[in-house]
Amino acid sequence: MEGLKHDKVIIGIDPGTNVMGYGILGVKGKKPELIAMGVLKLNAMDDHYMRLHHIYERVTGLIAQYLPDEMAIEAPFFGKNVQSMLKLGRAQGVAIAAALARQVPITEYEPRKIKMAITGNGAASKEQVSNLLQRTLNIAQDDMPKFLDATDGLAAALCHFYESQKPVFARGPKSWKAFIAKNPDRVKK
Amino acid sequence: MEGLKHDKVIIGIDPGTNVMGYGILGVKGKKPELIAMGVLKLNAMDDHYMRLHHIYERVTGLIAQYLPDEMAIEAPFFGKNVQSMLKLGRAQGVAIAAALARQVPITEYEPRKIKMAITGNGAASKEQVSNLLQRTLNIAQDDMPKFLDATDGLAAALCHFYESQKPVFARGPKSWKAFIAKNPDRVKK
Repeated sequence: MEGLKHDKVIIGIDPGTNVMGYGILGVKGKKPELIAMGVLKLNAMDDHYMRLHHIYERVTGLIAQYLPDEMAIEAPFFGKNVQSMLKLGRAQGVAIAAALARQVPITEYEPRKIKMAITGNGAASKEQVSNLLQRTLNIAQDDMPKFLDATDGLAAALCHFYESQKPVFARGPKSWKAFIAKNPDRVKK
Repeated sequence: MEGLKHDKVIIGIDPGTNVMGYGILGVKGKKPELIAMGVLKLNAMDDHYMRLHHIYERVTGLIAQYLPDEMAIEAPFFGKNVQSMLKLGRAQGVAIAAALARQVPITEYEPRKIKMAITGNGAASKEQVSNLLQRTLNIAQDDMPKFLDATDGLAAALCHFYESQKPVFARGPKSWKAFIAKNPDRVKK
């Protein structure tokens, strides 16, 4: 019931087939704060369905525990090959299903977009993203995870928070174009 | 509660992002029979998450209604491009999650394998598969679906039934090799 202390709770997920990172962010007024973050290691499991089951169960459990209002997922749109993309799609699919089952709205962000939102640099390293997260959310060094993958989910959640603070017409990379297309009379000539 | 009349109920799913076909097969003794088949058309929905939600809800509903013991899914391993494979993976993922949530064991089959099992020809047309299904399961012409996609899920279920009738050591393409590896003393020299 941690969610009740906050105006809004955002869950961020980075679903992969080897590691799933997650972060829970609470928003009080306009201030985001860390509620929880962690990682689900799947490497040790040989069975693909076992991995998918673990992702589904964990995301379902996190939603039941933290009652998030919104979910952000890190979703790469390009991959090395069709095989790995199918597996990634399945991992995303079970995480998405867990959210859909609880009517949690989902927004997806490309890795570049998340790095850009957190650090101002779309090609930032994992260390840079992690450092900025620690500073922005005032996380004590002892509370920082040993594995950088754990911060990827939290980064998606914080990216989503930043996006939600923007005026509606400024959201997304193509929004000016879209805004102008919808409002041609608002363009000064 | 249709499932209680049968020794075993198999649900077959062909999850795609435009159309999802499904078939429910009941097994009495060694005889498979049709319980239900249908199709979920997703083309009309623009929103990707809406489509995924519909797949998840429908599969969840079918499992609740027919209480299948096992699920078979048609799962292509190769696709045109990484984009379409990611989407296909997500569609498969939400269908898989619906089964995992109810502890229904899942087996996946490549399209070629399913066509081979039903018709004896891995490159059979949809019409040939549909005709063989109709004959094998004694389906009245009026009960055959107008859209051939609907028979794809049923074909996956029937393929799974055939596989389950095989002796354990003969299942799967690599089973002889695996059998020999496990039982080196059974090889005649």
